[in-house]
Amino acid sequence: MWNTPEKPQDNFSFELIAEDGDARAGILRTPHGEIRTPIFMPVGTQATVKAVTPAQLEEIRVQILLSNTYHLYLRPGADTVAAMGGLHRFMQWPKPILTDSGGFQVFSLGPLRRIDEDGVTFKSHIDGSTHRFTPESAIAIEEKLGADIIMAFDECSDPLDKTYAIQALERTHRWAERCLKAKTRPDQALFGIVQGGIFEDLRQASARRLSSLDFPGYAIGGLSVGESKMDMLKSIEVVNGILPRQKPRYLMGVGTPFDLLEGIRRGVDMFDCVLPTRLARHHAAQTMCGRLNLANSAFSLDERPIDEKCGCYTCAHFSRAYLRHLVVAKEMLAATLLSIHNIYTLVELSQQIRQSIIEKRFNEFSSHVLTNLNLNVSDQS
Amino acid sequence: MWNTPEKPQDNFSFELIAEDGDARAGILRTPHGEIRTPIFMPVGTQATVKAVTPAQLEEIRVQILLSNTYHLYLRPGADTVAAMGGLHRFMQWPKPILTDSGGFQVFSLGPLRRIDEDGVTFKSHIDGSTHRFTPESAIAIEEKLGADIIMAFDECSDPLDKTYAIQALERTHRWAERCLKAKTRPDQALFGIVQGGIFEDLRQASARRLSSLDFPGYAIGGLSVGESKMDMLKSIEVVNGILPRQKPRYLMGVGTPFDLLEGIRRGVDMFDCVLPTRLARHHAAQTMCGRLNLANSAFSLDERPIDEKCGCYTCAHFSRAYLRHLVVAKEMLAATLLSIHNIYTLVELSQQIRQSIIEKRFNEFSSHVLTNLNLNVSDQS
Repeated sequence: MWNTPEKPQDNFSFELIAEDGDARAGILRTPHGEIRTPIFMPVGTQATVKAVTPAQLEEIRVQILLSNTYHLYLRPGADTVAAMGGLHRFMQWPKPILTDSGGFQVFSLGPLRRIDEDGVTFKSHIDGSTHRFTPESAIAIEEKLGADIIMAFDECSDPLDKTYAIQALERTHRWAERCLKAKTRPDQALFGIVQGGIFEDLRQASARRLSSLDFPGYAIGGLSVGESKMDMLKSIEVVNGILPRQKPRYLMGVGTPFDLLEGIRRGVDMFDCVLPTRLARHHAAQTMCGRLNLANSAFSLDERPIDEKCGCYTCAHFSRAYLRHLVVAKEMLAATLLSIHNIYTLVELSQQIRQSIIEKRFNEFSSHVLTNLNLNVSDQS
Repeated sequence: MWNTPEKPQDNFSFELIAEDGDARAGILRTPHGEIRTPIFMPVGTQATVKAVTPAQLEEIRVQILLSNTYHLYLRPGADTVAAMGGLHRFMQWPKPILTDSGGFQVFSLGPLRRIDEDGVTFKSHIDGSTHRFTPESAIAIEEKLGADIIMAFDECSDPLDKTYAIQALERTHRWAERCLKAKTRPDQALFGIVQGGIFEDLRQASARRLSSLDFPGYAIGGLSVGESKMDMLKSIEVVNGILPRQKPRYLMGVGTPFDLLEGIRRGVDMFDCVLPTRLARHHAAQTMCGRLNLANSAFSLDERPIDEKCGCYTCAHFSRAYLRHLVVAKEMLAATLLSIHNIYTLVELSQQIRQSIIEKRFNEFSSHVLTNLNLNVSDQS
């Protein structure tokens, strides 16, 4: 049985060990262990990465998980998680965890939430009950959950509405200061979140303002929510040109192989996304040569694994024909085996990119990967 | 990666290594390995034990799986399984497999099937298409699937209707002879199935008739389908008093801790049941002190595992509070973790019973287990 360390050490640090252009390889130290960046973080929304056990996550060498404050606050409740010894112990994940602040989820509720200067009032998506988050209460909840890295409570505005984006940004900055003041636990690192939609001047202003607040790490929020890929990449470039070089940079909610490569090329160290597990539940396997839809009858008699070069449990054992059978028969094992493969693919890619940065061949490696991703493989639909 | 043995050996045998009263401990040798009986076999209806990977099944020391001919015939089809190298390779289960004959499932279709002397015509529960099984075609399908142990195609009649039971029994005996003649693969053992409802004279006649046919093993079918526990146990006694002592005896579709103990007490060697995985998908944990309904709010803050004495992955790691959270949040991981626990409980019980038989203390052990099963533990509902 896995045990909680009795005294989590206050040992958060970030060390850059190599750079290749703007791409960086580092070591992020947390009370629950080291993370070799750049890294992809799978999402365990409700204190579980859907359909996958912690043992399976360790087997695929996941280094850090993300979990969602909004969901855990509603169910089972932060007090319950705290009473059960915190999130690591509750979900039996011995390695680092990052919690978001609930900001993004609450703002996604649309008509179910109302924002004022002090915080946000919202209705639960589960039972319609009314709740309120402020920067102070969000931090208090994240302290009860006990993740290694916690996020400031921010306002994620419409990325295309500049007038609103300016207001939201000012509020996000005031809230960032309140989060810093509210934080009490020495064994958690609080990251600030840069906002500003797709507006270069706002992103710059946000990055400068937050950099002055001396957070131990920074996130780039409010992207991958409807803007173009070009706008997303431009925003990352602008922000990372300003954020302090010696601190980790986390691009929130982004996680395709393309996004990892292009984010890392622009100086991003951390990524999270529900995509690999969501794709898995919709029968799709992510490979380094595009996606396969395992419901496709073309795979009925296909003895090959999803990806012959992949080292995951699923590819080491199961044929496309078997996976297709599981999908067609609506068996839960399909989601488990495809989630294992999809998470492995992104974690493995992040570590291969890391190695290429250390060996100063990131451009060569990324060209190779991008070429494969764009190849039209005739038997893969 | 696991590989199919290139030459499965024709090495089916059964060795009794100890007896205590009518209870027996044995070793069943098959082309895919030895099984230490008495044994519980989890069910992988559609070539997967629902929500559990083969690696997890090996970790909980499952020795043999059952899979269903009716379901695999319809989807993905026996030819597909054969083209993919047979069922072991298709589902990546390297140990022994037993397939039923489809008889029970077909007869369960009620108005969707029509029986005649030659076989059964039925409609698929999936798409309503019409199909036909005969003893010969059922064996041909089982040979394509390639399990170590295959079952004769039988007629599972209403256990309480004697007139019909007599007809069905005669037909089952004629079909048993046809199955024996139809069988061609030397690396599969064909078991006969004793029928006869709850009627002692019919069970005796069936056991005598089938014993004369020299099958390498015998099943007791048509029980646990609505009759009383007393009738079930009486039928087992009557049949096992006649079946040849040196051959394995398999009680079909039965699998509570009580059923295992009372079946083994009456000379049964093998059991299968969907109960542990079905209970798991309905939030129930089987323990040796009764069942827990993990949806119960009483477990919200319960730090204990399901069963403190249990050695499974679930009990070694997760609290009742966490499992309740997964159940309430409708997370797939609940089914996985509860299935692991429930299967482990029955496999472990069967092996503890085995040890007690070897050590000539079966009665003492079974009294102890039965007492615990009947205790009303106040915090378990």
